[in-house]
Amino acid sequence: MTGGPSADNGPESGDSETQWPVTLAGVSETVVTTLGPNERWNVAALGVHAPDGDGPATATTWGRTRTWRNFRERGSGYVQFTRDPVDFAEAALSVREEDDPVIDSADAWVTVDVERRDSGNEGDTQWVEWALNPVDSTVERRVVPTTNRGHAAVVEATVAASRLDVPSYDRETLLDRLAYFESVVETAGGERERAAFERVCDLVDADW
Amino acid sequence: MTGGPSADNGPESGDSETQWPVTLAGVSETVVTTLGPNERWNVAALGVHAPDGDGPATATTWGRTRTWRNFRERGSGYVQFTRDPVDFAEAALSVREEDDPVIDSADAWVTVDVERRDSGNEGDTQWVEWALNPVDSTVERRVVPTTNRGHAAVVEATVAASRLDVPSYDRETLLDRLAYFESVVETAGGERERAAFERVCDLVDADW
Repeated sequence: MTGGPSADNGPESGDSETQWPVTLAGVSETVVTTLGPNERWNVAALGVHAPDGDGPATATTWGRTRTWRNFRERGSGYVQFTRDPVDFAEAALSVREEDDPVIDSADAWVTVDVERRDSGNEGDTQWVEWALNPVDSTVERRVVPTTNRGHAAVVEATVAASRLDVPSYDRETLLDRLAYFESVVETAGGERERAAFERVCDLVDADW
Repeated sequence: MTGGPSADNGPESGDSETQWPVTLAGVSETVVTTLGPNERWNVAALGVHAPDGDGPATATTWGRTRTWRNFRERGSGYVQFTRDPVDFAEAALSVREEDDPVIDSADAWVTVDVERRDSGNEGDTQWVEWALNPVDSTVERRVVPTTNRGHAAVVEATVAASRLDVPSYDRETLLDRLAYFESVVETAGGERERAAFERVCDLVDADW
């Protein structure tokens, strides 16, 4: 179903039991696809927290999102590592559904079984922390990574944009941040970062 | 002198004349080492602008920095791609000199001949734009890249910090930004991002 090279057990992980094809540290911003009740794959952003000691990697869903629903109903998903800022922005801010679970820009993906680990409330929002147990992983390509401030600015813009309707955040501060990140994309972004920021502007009902 | 695997002509570039081992788009934040008059290698940050059409990649130095001096006197340097935020922060904000031109964390490096291409003034600061002509490149490792907001926040913090003494920037805005990026490192960074932010705090004479 996924195509590409065969599974890679992640020489960087140093642990034969884990199959993450990357070094997880802190929170890695990924794209996750989960199978919905319509048998289509919902594409969303997911922050993957590195394992704490011997524990599993984890991720938290906030509210009754599609990812939350599909994790609960299906107990699995595809965690994907992509450098493409357009795919990331759409995953973070739009409802996107695909016939295939793997997006074209994924450098690697991991099928995970997920298990509810903890839950709670923050304000009116219920959060659920999920343990992510890698089942299989595929590496499509390995490259020399580069650092582009425009790419990071797109990611930060999606974070700010997704908080605009959350009462505990100050809207003016978020809009100032969006303006700053737009300027960073203009200064340092490439073509894909500019396209991604246009998507952010299309998807967010606000002016800055 | 550099060790590691032999030169790689960059299958991603699609141009046999160029030897960048990465896809350059927009501005890539790199670490550059240049040989000083004391025969030691100065380690600094350098934003590499992707070629515009058939032109070369370029980078701009601002003011009479060591990189500017060494580019002018030596006409060359080592452009390095590293994921390590501590090395990046030190390159950006401190004076660091090494006996060897290649830093340990470099995933790849490119020896470049540099040529003054343009220059001008912004405020009291003279800038020089340099053409970077790759001579040889070495890839130490290729990996599946990950996106970490904490890493990006360290990079942004070095940018804000380096502007604190520039009169055309509003200091309070920069300090607010530094506080925000510190919170991002706390939320999303791994161990290296936390260490890098501590270095930023050590190296910057300001409180936020």
